[in-house]
Amino acid sequence: MRHVAISEMLSWERFYRANFINTLSGFKSVSLIGTSNNEGNSNLAIFSNIVHIGADPALIGFVNRPREAAPHTLSNIEATGSYTINHVHADILDAAHQTSAKYPIDESEFEAVGLTPDFREGVTAPFVKESRIQYAMELSEVIPIQTNGTYFVIGKLISVYFDESTLSDDGFLDISKAGSLTSLGLDAYYETTMMKRLRYAKFKREE
Amino acid sequence: MRHVAISEMLSWERFYRANFINTLSGFKSVSLIGTSNNEGNSNLAIFSNIVHIGADPALIGFVNRPREAAPHTLSNIEATGSYTINHVHADILDAAHQTSAKYPIDESEFEAVGLTPDFREGVTAPFVKESRIQYAMELSEVIPIQTNGTYFVIGKLISVYFDESTLSDDGFLDISKAGSLTSLGLDAYYETTMMKRLRYAKFKREE
Repeated sequence: MRHVAISEMLSWERFYRANFINTLSGFKSVSLIGTSNNEGNSNLAIFSNIVHIGADPALIGFVNRPREAAPHTLSNIEATGSYTINHVHADILDAAHQTSAKYPIDESEFEAVGLTPDFREGVTAPFVKESRIQYAMELSEVIPIQTNGTYFVIGKLISVYFDESTLSDDGFLDISKAGSLTSLGLDAYYETTMMKRLRYAKFKREE
Repeated sequence: MRHVAISEMLSWERFYRANFINTLSGFKSVSLIGTSNNEGNSNLAIFSNIVHIGADPALIGFVNRPREAAPHTLSNIEATGSYTINHVHADILDAAHQTSAKYPIDESEFEAVGLTPDFREGVTAPFVKESRIQYAMELSEVIPIQTNGTYFVIGKLISVYFDESTLSDDGFLDISKAGSLTSLGLDAYYETTMMKRLRYAKFKREE
């Protein structure tokens, strides 16, 4: 095993260090977040730090970079309270990744990368028509992270559109059946293969 | 595509709904968090909502359930400021999953599940000797999430021990080479296969 202390990492070239630290925390849930502003301009951006917060109430969070680095998604969510999260599969991966480029506010990433915005009743933000698992969120809390100026954005689940072939008898969605990918670091994408599901773990003191 | 609104999800049986909502947010970074308290009792617990917060400073966060549901890891981190995060591969998966059972405070999960605590100079918390990618953290912020009583725990990266075969020329750790798994929902674990790495995306207005 090789050992590296933070003092050594700080001496590394910036992109080398960013790759290392970004991969260390492990596989991520990669999805496209769709929003629109009050003028009706749509925005689409790829996010990979999406986490389950709780099932009752149904809450999901994501990390948003500082405002100057990634302004549109967060300001649209604050303006309308609405956003959609859309899984990414192989056929739309290149387009999804391209949304990470910095587009001007008047340019829709949907059009620029070739994905289709799908507006549906009761949800202000656009879904990504090509995505096989899509869900709508309503903003609950925007929590500033003091240490580095990022934000933890928490929302309530409103509705879900999904490929029914992924649904198991016990409510589990095997999203790998819909080709949903996982990401690692800044630029790597992985396919997955289920190894196993394990039973709920219980403590039993030895007799 | 099937559509389900939150009103319908609320009518579902509790475990069915938990499986559905837990899988919807996608693949997760599953790792073992090692801690110890000021009396020297060690604790080990599996966590799956671990997210990259930033590379400079190097920050990683995780979601901790409400204190009454998962008290030991968080109180140990608050007491000592120290914790380790250890990747999980197939050989230690059953043991890792078993740490999710509720053990009494005087019972070490290391001993109960058959993993080896590894204490190293400069870090109070124990590493998991069997893990192939291990890193030490120092507590930075504990942020209460008002909406459901969970906590977002943010720490600074202190040092890393890793299998050198995973390191690429540009600092990227291909953690799949060390067998690091990803998890989905409450109980499923997946192996991964790299599909591709994509270039940094740039905006170019069409000529």
